[in-house]
Order: sequence, then structure tokens, then C-alpha cells
Amino acid sequence: MFQNKMPRYDILSQESMATLHAGWRRIVSEIGIEFASPWAVDMLREAGQEVSGETVKFDPDWVMKQVAKAPREFDLRARNPKNNVHIGGDSMVFGAVYGPPFVREGDVRRDGSFADYENFCRLSQSFDALDSVGGVVTEPNDLSLDSRHLDMAFAAATLTDKFFMGNVVTHENAKDVIRMAEIIHGGRAAIEETPALISLVNCNSPLRWDDRMLDSMREYALAGQPVVTTPFLLMGAMSPVTIPATLAQQMAEALVAIALVQLVRPGAPVVFGSFLSNIDMQSGSPQFGTPESGIGLLCTGQIARSLNLPFRGGGGLNSSQTVDAQSAYQTMMTMMPTFLSGTNWVMHTAGWLEGGLVSSYDKFVVDIEILQSLMAEFTPLEFNEASLAFDAHVEVGHGGHFLGAAHTMDRFRDCFYRPFLTNSDNYERWMRLGAKDTRARAEEIWKKKLEEYEKPEMDAQVLAELTEFVAKRKSELDA
Amino acid sequence: MFQNKMPRYDILSQESMATLHAGWRRIVSEIGIEFASPWAVDMLREAGQEVSGETVKFDPDWVMKQVAKAPREFDLRARNPKNNVHIGGDSMVFGAVYGPPFVREGDVRRDGSFADYENFCRLSQSFDALDSVGGVVTEPNDLSLDSRHLDMAFAAATLTDKFFMGNVVTHENAKDVIRMAEIIHGGRAAIEETPALISLVNCNSPLRWDDRMLDSMREYALAGQPVVTTPFLLMGAMSPVTIPATLAQQMAEALVAIALVQLVRPGAPVVFGSFLSNIDMQSGSPQFGTPESGIGLLCTGQIARSLNLPFRGGGGLNSSQTVDAQSAYQTMMTMMPTFLSGTNWVMHTAGWLEGGLVSSYDKFVVDIEILQSLMAEFTPLEFNEASLAFDAHVEVGHGGHFLGAAHTMDRFRDCFYRPFLTNSDNYERWMRLGAKDTRARAEEIWKKKLEEYEKPEMDAQVLAELTEFVAKRKSELDA
Repeated sequence: MFQNKMPRYDILSQESMATLHAGWRRIVSEIGIEFASPWAVDMLREAGQEVSGETVKFDPDWVMKQVAKAPREFDLRARNPKNNVHIGGDSMVFGAVYGPPFVREGDVRRDGSFADYENFCRLSQSFDALDSVGGVVTEPNDLSLDSRHLDMAFAAATLTDKFFMGNVVTHENAKDVIRMAEIIHGGRAAIEETPALISLVNCNSPLRWDDRMLDSMREYALAGQPVVTTPFLLMGAMSPVTIPATLAQQMAEALVAIALVQLVRPGAPVVFGSFLSNIDMQSGSPQFGTPESGIGLLCTGQIARSLNLPFRGGGGLNSSQTVDAQSAYQTMMTMMPTFLSGTNWVMHTAGWLEGGLVSSYDKFVVDIEILQSLMAEFTPLEFNEASLAFDAHVEVGHGGHFLGAAHTMDRFRDCFYRPFLTNSDNYERWMRLGAKDTRARAEEIWKKKLEEYEKPEMDAQVLAELTEFVAKRKSELDA
Repeated sequence: MFQNKMPRYDILSQESMATLHAGWRRIVSEIGIEFASPWAVDMLREAGQEVSGETVKFDPDWVMKQVAKAPREFDLRARNPKNNVHIGGDSMVFGAVYGPPFVREGDVRRDGSFADYENFCRLSQSFDALDSVGGVVTEPNDLSLDSRHLDMAFAAATLTDKFFMGNVVTHENAKDVIRMAEIIHGGRAAIEETPALISLVNCNSPLRWDDRMLDSMREYALAGQPVVTTPFLLMGAMSPVTIPATLAQQMAEALVAIALVQLVRPGAPVVFGSFLSNIDMQSGSPQFGTPESGIGLLCTGQIARSLNLPFRGGGGLNSSQTVDAQSAYQTMMTMMPTFLSGTNWVMHTAGWLEGGLVSSYDKFVVDIEILQSLMAEFTPLEFNEASLAFDAHVEVGHGGHFLGAAHTMDRFRDCFYRPFLTNSDNYERWMRLGAKDTRARAEEIWKKKLEEYEKPEMDAQVLAELTEFVAKRKSELDA
């Protein structure tokens, strides 16, 4: 797990932060937030908030008191304890892309299948830099809609030994995946002590929480499993076209959900979620990897820290249709701020293409290279006599070279980040080897990774119990 | 000219900075620096430094006293006063790639020609975000080696009305280009009052300044034209494999040259130069856009500010052979730190490919898009009632959308950065329009820009005098 010990790049003044806090307080108290689940409205009414139909107007001080009950950071257990992670503080935890219905394999774009889902699980297991396959790495469109959550969780649980995400399509799905986590980790008490599932709940922005998300959120909160309360904000559509307004809205939407979680189960782990970009004002289409999304991410980190909450944001977001230059510069445009803001839980780290509609095998590899490069870049320098290398200068003198210097020989294996995709062959050699661009080289890499993949072992009894549960539930659901 | 009003991302502690300062002081005083020009050695001896052959050992306090004579920031005049720039402070000034012998046009890689040189001048003129074509935007290999500096300066002076760089191949070349600047700007006094040429002088690292660079440096300093004293540091070859050692070396090499410039002409403008990356320790080939170069750039900015000097660094550096994903993620890996460190003079902003061996037309366009995106990202947010948009929330309410809100209608034209290369068409539309990737779209853009290019007017008398001078000198040099 990566620890970001570099400074945070904070860009908001104290005054701006105060303005944002005044902004969300005004939204929740004067306009209020809609909640489509009656249980949520009832709980909030009982807690003294002002209810009118589905709309709840909040006392912002009460919201802050509720938010203060959430842990500042928490652990998340993986099947293999080596892959346990910590959410919050300096930790940065990375999951693959989440949600795409389509897959791109080379030049072919097609519906995602369960075979693709399994492949992305294998790739997520194969790259150490990635902490999780996430949840819906692609939609397995060839599986039953009612029971595919079981197949996905089973694949993530058995093809990787890393943690994975909970399903939020219905609260029944949530219950199923929680039960699977109990089987894997030795019972309810174990996952209540240290949670195993992290789940994404999106706000139907602006200012409305829908019932499916609320009901799933409640299941996970009851089980002590962390939820990532995420306003879904494409500026110009789901929020105003100004970043300050969008940040205030993001706080309003996320904080009331966190307050509600703390009613359901005080002390339940939560993550302040951000998914903030903008639309193209000509076409209305979503844009990713924009300057605005970069700024939003920097601000979000600073806001979350001011609230003592771990936060989610960033990833390899881009709007490109193919694994070209745009896909890469937009990905860097979000991934660098992801690191600059010290994002704790990073979804969509690998494989995101075409505005999140496509899981791309080639892009997955490009993204891992970018991720590892940034991990190297965000590692503080060591300053000491050895790193200052005065003796090397004495040895080499004027106009010489350091290739054979003792200082170099001692360090040449790991002095620099060693890329696995990036190529710097000279032109003649590059031509001789087939003039392969980054996408072509990435394709070779993921194919080799899949060939070399080794399935992590699972305790036979756990596997049997898990298999039985999944089979039983599938037969019930698909009946 | 872009003003970077965002915070700087400083990553060095006071202790680390003190260590670096101790480091360069030890190098210049105990090992010393070689100077291949006798005039330089003589001047430094007369100034009390310890000379042995070509090696000069420095009193670091004397170096610092000399460095303090350099201006903290300065203006640079362009032919069109609208294109004047300021080097230092919050200003960031951007020039195109410098030095490539080859050109890539689409899939064709070939020797650069004067026609290419002129095209890149036209493109540099066409994009407002770029402040200068720079100097050797590509080598015009079809021109005489002895006189091509005249053709290049003439092209830069007439096809653009922006400032351009001085030639440093010989001090005679330098004299020619200074004379051309005098003609353009109305005489020696004018360019001594406000300089017109900025020139790159590279150290033959480690710890040696060669005669050609020193002699050119001297010409420019005598004329009061700024020089960018730049250690040429590929870690592992020209410097040790540790970043702190390389930063100390960079300070040693740059600062003694600046001290020398201040002997030649006290108060002459200088720029603390950085060109810092690393080699691949397997192949020995240069790497660009690496994590190490990003860190180096962040540190360099902080160091230059501690010295009260404007600094040069960054740009769109990458090692890729083609305009693919790697070329873009490596470019962003240096361009984002270029902005984070507030780099004052940014060479290689547009067109750099293949480790600087190739000037690429397509990459030129990609780089302008990246540049403009970062300019948008590094523009501080406005916080006020209007940007907080409470009324827009009242208008839109719960679960609605902001597309038609009054707040949106007032701002939709310029609320977000508007890309000109980046594409977010939906897949069906993108396919229908030819499934063009970023490179293909970039090609269309630069070809259109060249078609639409309008040559900026030049005063007829100046043009005649300039033409006559160039013709006369060419006939002398090519005789």
C-alpha cells in the first residue's frame, strides 16, 4: 500500500474554505436534500431535522456533530492479509475502473462479458500497484441481471486475494455480498471488527438521494462496512458551472449522507466521495481529465482534511475513444492531482476509457505505468552524505561520466523508476522491433500477464461454502 | 503572457535546502569547475579565485555576491510590443522545442529542412499560448552550416512577431544575431535597455564549461542580453544517480557561470537553467518525462527562488518515438511540474518528440492543447456570491439539471476550458467522422493553421536593412 509522504498541494485560502462551509450550510438548511427512502426521512425527522415530504432541511451544526462520529481513518481487510489496506491519512489505495458496460480489446469495442470481468480480475491480481479490482470492472452483460452480482463477487473473491467492493444495485444484492464477505473472513464479527467491503453510493445530484443507493448504503452501514458517499457532479448538468458552487454542493450532498450513516450506525466508516468533472457546453457530453476536474480534486482533498474524513476521487479519467495521446494526457491531468491531493481511495485507476463507458485492456496497462511512475515521483528524497555523492564528483572530475563510478555501481539497479511499458529505444532499434506504439506494447503486456497469471489459493472449506452460497442464491434469483 | 498565481508546490525542507547549499559550495571550492576559454580563466583569476590550468576553485561567498548582482526578473522585448514578455516572478513564458535534427510529419521521419523551420515559425506565430518559436525549432539541414543561423534568425524575425532566441554555435554567430536584433529594435541602446534575445548556454557537465558556449555567453552578456546557464544533466551519465547530488551539481555549474556573467557585465540578466533527467541504466539511453525529472523540476524552482533568480526548466519532454500515449503521459509528467514549480522560461513546450531528436508537427498541436489546459488549471478560483451560485440551486431544486439555469446561460461560453484538439464525441459519432485518433486530428489542425497563417507585417525599412545584412553576411560566410 502506497504512503504519500509528500506535501499536499493545497490551493484554497482560509477565506475560501469558510465561504464553502457557509455555502453548504445554506444549501442544506434553506433548500434541503431529498431522500427517496421513507426509512431515511423518518430517521432524520426523529433526529430533529425539518421534514416536508421527501425533502429534509438540516441543522448544519447537527450534520457536523454526526460527521464527527465517523472515524478519521480505518482498515480494510483483504483475503490475503498482505493485501490489507488502510483508508485515510497518508495512505493511497487504488482500484480499477468501475462500471463500464463496454470493453475495448485492441481495435475492437464490444459488450463486456463475464470472461472480460474475470480477465480484469486476473490483471488486477497481477499488478502489485493495484490494491483492488474494485467492483464492476466491466458489466458482465452475458450474465443474468438478477444474479450477476454473485458471479462478480465470486470472481473477485477467488481470482484475486485483494479486497473488493460491495454491490449497490439493490439492498438485497448488498446483503448477498456482505454474506459472502462473512464466509470469506470468518463470520459477521470479523468483518464488523475490520471491514472487508467498501461500496460506492452515488447521489442523484443535484440534492437528491435515491432509494436504491440509500437502501444499499443502509445495509453496508448496518454491517459496519464503509460507504463512499459520492455526489455525481458534471458541472453544467448536475451542478452549477462554477467550481466553488459545485464544491459547496458536493459538501452538502456528501455530508448529509454521512450524517445519515452515523444515525444508522454511529461510528460506521465512511469516505467523503468526489466525482467532479464538467460537460462540454456545446454538445452536452461529459468531459473527463479537464482542468476543472483537476482543480476540483485539489480542493476536495483540502475540504476532506478540514472535515477529518478520508476521501475518494481522481483516477485515470479521460474522454478518449481510443488509447491515444488524449487518453494519456487526460489521465495524467487527473492522476497527478490525485497524488497532489493525497487521495485516499482512488477508483478508476486502471482501464478507464471513453468517459467510463469502456474498460480497455490496453489502457489498463498504460494506467499501471502511470500509477507506478507517480508513486515514484511522490516518494520523498533522501538527503544525506551518501545521496549527496561528493565522492562521486571527486572520482569523476571534470567532463567525465558517472556510468562506471562506484556510487553508480552501488545503486544502478534501483536508483531510478524502471518502466515496463515506456520505451526509449533509439529509432533504428524501435523500427527493427516492429515500430510498436504504446498501445501495441500494452497489448503484448496484458496478454503475457494473463498467460502467466496464477490463481491465488483459497481455503477449500471457504471455497466450498462460498460456492454453495452462490449456487443457492443464483438458483433462487434466476428462478 | 501567462501569470501563475497559484501556490508553488515546494517539496524541499529548510534542512534539505541547507544541505544542497553546502553541497554546491563544497563542489566549487574543493573540486572546482573547468573553463575552456582563457578569457574566463583570466577574469576569474583576477577576481581572486584559485586557478590551476583550466580549473577554477571558487570562494562560494564570492560566487553568491556575484549572483546577487543579477536582476531578479527582467523584460524581454518582441517585435510586436503585444508579445513582450517578462521573465521571472509569477510569469511563465513558453517557447517551442529547441534543437532537433529530425522532423516527423505523420508517419514520416526525415531530416529537418528550412521549409520545416519556416513552418514551425508559422505555427508558433499562430498559437497565442506560445510566446516564442524559440531558436533552433529544427535544424535546417539543407542550409549551409556556416550561415544557417542567419536564415533561422531571419525566419523567426519575419514569420513571427514574437521574441526569439540567440544562436550559440559560435561567438561570431552570436554577434550576427545581436546585430539583427539591433536592426529590428532600433539600435544597440534599445536592446541594451530592454533585451530582445535570450540564449541557451549549456554546461558540458560534469563541472566543465566549453569554449564555444562561454564565448557565446560573453557576447550576449556584453550586449546585456540574457543567457540561460544550463547544466546538461542526465543522471547516471553527466551527474550522479541521486537527485540531491544532481541538484547540488546543477547549482555549482549554473552559479559559477552566472558569477562569470556578472564579471563580464555586472547586472546582466541571467536565468538559472535546468535540464535534468536520467538515463536508462540498462541501455544507457536518455529518458524524459520520468518521475525523477519531475522531482528535479519541483526542487529546481524552489532552489531558484531561494537564490532570487528566474529559472528555466520543464517543457513537453518525452522519449517516445511517435505521437502516442507515452508521448502524452511523459509530456504531462514534466509539464504539470513545470506549472507546479512556476517555471519562468519554458523551452521545449511544443513539438518535442523522441528524446529531442525530432520536431513533430502533430506533437506540436498536442502540446499546445496540454499547455492551454494547464494554463486553465493554474488559474485561481474566484470566490464570491456569484460563483457560489446559491440562486441557481434555488432555481433548479432537487434532481433537476442546470443546463438551462440563468446562472449557466450567463456563463456557458467561457465557464470551462474549451479544447480544440481533445474530442469527447460519443462513439457512434466518432466512428461516423472517421474514427480519428488524437494524432490524426492534430495533423488536420496544423495543416489548417498553416493554410490560414498570416505573415505579420514588418516595417519596410527594417525589413530591407535586415535582408541586406543577412545577404551580406551569408555571402561572406559561405564564400
